[in-house]
Amino acid sequence: MIKKIVGNVDFIENLRGKSATFALSMTTTQTCNIEGLTQAGIPGLIHLTPTLDGEFICSGEVRSLENIAETPKGVPTPALITRAIHLLKPFKQMQIFDLGVHTKPKLDYFKSYEFGLKMSDNIEDGANIDAKEVFEKGIEFAKDYELESDYLILAESVPSGTTTALCSALALGYECEGKFSSSFKAKPTDIKQKVIESALKNIDQNDDEFAKLSKVSDNMLIFNAGFVLGACKRGMPLVLAGGTQMAGVLLIANKLASNIDAKNLALCTTKWVGEDESSEIKALLEMCDFKVNAFYADFDFALSDHPALKLYDQGEAKEGVGAGACLVYGLLNGLGKESITREVEKFLG
Amino acid sequence: MIKKIVGNVDFIENLRGKSATFALSMTTTQTCNIEGLTQAGIPGLIHLTPTLDGEFICSGEVRSLENIAETPKGVPTPALITRAIHLLKPFKQMQIFDLGVHTKPKLDYFKSYEFGLKMSDNIEDGANIDAKEVFEKGIEFAKDYELESDYLILAESVPSGTTTALCSALALGYECEGKFSSSFKAKPTDIKQKVIESALKNIDQNDDEFAKLSKVSDNMLIFNAGFVLGACKRGMPLVLAGGTQMAGVLLIANKLASNIDAKNLALCTTKWVGEDESSEIKALLEMCDFKVNAFYADFDFALSDHPALKLYDQGEAKEGVGAGACLVYGLLNGLGKESITREVEKFLG
Repeated sequence: MIKKIVGNVDFIENLRGKSATFALSMTTTQTCNIEGLTQAGIPGLIHLTPTLDGEFICSGEVRSLENIAETPKGVPTPALITRAIHLLKPFKQMQIFDLGVHTKPKLDYFKSYEFGLKMSDNIEDGANIDAKEVFEKGIEFAKDYELESDYLILAESVPSGTTTALCSALALGYECEGKFSSSFKAKPTDIKQKVIESALKNIDQNDDEFAKLSKVSDNMLIFNAGFVLGACKRGMPLVLAGGTQMAGVLLIANKLASNIDAKNLALCTTKWVGEDESSEIKALLEMCDFKVNAFYADFDFALSDHPALKLYDQGEAKEGVGAGACLVYGLLNGLGKESITREVEKFLG
Repeated sequence: MIKKIVGNVDFIENLRGKSATFALSMTTTQTCNIEGLTQAGIPGLIHLTPTLDGEFICSGEVRSLENIAETPKGVPTPALITRAIHLLKPFKQMQIFDLGVHTKPKLDYFKSYEFGLKMSDNIEDGANIDAKEVFEKGIEFAKDYELESDYLILAESVPSGTTTALCSALALGYECEGKFSSSFKAKPTDIKQKVIESALKNIDQNDDEFAKLSKVSDNMLIFNAGFVLGACKRGMPLVLAGGTQMAGVLLIANKLASNIDAKNLALCTTKWVGEDESSEIKALLEMCDFKVNAFYADFDFALSDHPALKLYDQGEAKEGVGAGACLVYGLLNGLGKESITREVEKFLG
């Protein structure tokens, strides 16, 4: 079942049975290698997470890791859910939006869009992004983007992305403390708080919105804010695949433009975000001046005994690599909880 | 699961979820009625096999047989697999490439391309083909061919086709003894050997490649070699659906042209060919000067108790009518071993 967070359920019901393109927008930041800030990846190699996610969802293989035995033993990447859905009910295309990564995914044939963006710096010292340029690239790309199916599912892989999202929203003046989620069950509040405080100190009273974002944001948030505007302008059916990070994208878009018509846009996420008690995605979405559609997949691992998957139900990991929107897409196309659970379990042996 | 024989797995992963046209290229040769050479059909009526295969995969009915009770009791045609996949996850089009058959399939509405080709003679006395003309028809047709889906699956039905394939490859100078498969578990080596020896005796030292093929090949091999070249030239995504016969197509193309860019081409076959111990498809493909992608469907009838289907797992029949590529297509589109097995079983009662 698909549950509503806010907006009009007819938007998502009207996508039932329609074909989708899945695009993974990925970027790396130096912020992600701050110890203890995220558990989205292999300690010491967190910067490879977007690369490995992209390789895995497209090809079923993890290619940019020399020692395959190093894959994490704890919480598995939500990319497993994305790949399982793609195996059961394939997307028409799998694409990469490369927004500046440490290592390019080793993929052939799959369409990978490049924008000349580099991975950004640690926000504690200033992310060093040209936010205006990145934002405008997003707008332009959405205008020209050739959609080869009925709608686009736009996902993200940005380790420590909730930190940059929270920091971006705070810098833009939103009152959003405690409303962004974390890949940890117990939020790493102390470290995160310290990083964010350091980052915000770099902001000048005279900084405009772009100057602020250039210091504390990440390329995914800024580019996709532009992409959302471009997509809304042409009415392209778009599903933002993510939790509070994608809410952050909308908050940025909301600050940089007015009169946004998001009729053909929805945010779709997991139950672990939709029902998360330590974050408030609904409150974040309601800070937008425009109307938003947002839903979550009523899916959990209740049917599994696998301890790694049980961690999701206990609040670890929660979302990423479009897992929530993929579950929604699966439910919209006749997949059931049982078959999805079994397909994910196959990866874990 | 899809397993690699050679090449780049991303080619086939990128076809996941995409739509396909299925085309059956068919021809009959007088060679096929040599007793004991093939078990692909009804003894005495082997020349009807392509016709019946075409009718069955398109319509679900066998029409060009007066006495339906005569259908074989032994190994069922691989067309059952093709039809089962089409029922579970339909192709966008089913088409016939009529390359010269004894009896035209009784089909309406289905697109059937004709090329003014007649069934060829027994290779023991010379096949009597105008190889250059057939080859050029293949190239021209590929240039103009209107693909109405994301990719084309090109299958074959040519009884005793592995004999003409082996003979063609030998005539062109490939060292390929023992590398071509057979529809028999125990290869009919004696008869086949005798037929091939007789055929090769017709070849003159001064014969060029076309003259050789005119004597010992079949229309499917030659036409599709041309088709492959035309398709590669325009970059049309193409799956050659077959085992060592389709490898023979590539070997012919390799001899008749240079600098072939087969980036958008793959050969897909069954596990029974991919893991066959009495033939070597991988070695055949590696004789090509260009890079080839080739895969097989990791599917067998382990989940079935039906004795006729068990014969496949014992090495009879192995491939044909695009069965292997259809299984790959099924796996690429979310079908599982269980559902495919049950669908095939339904035909057998």
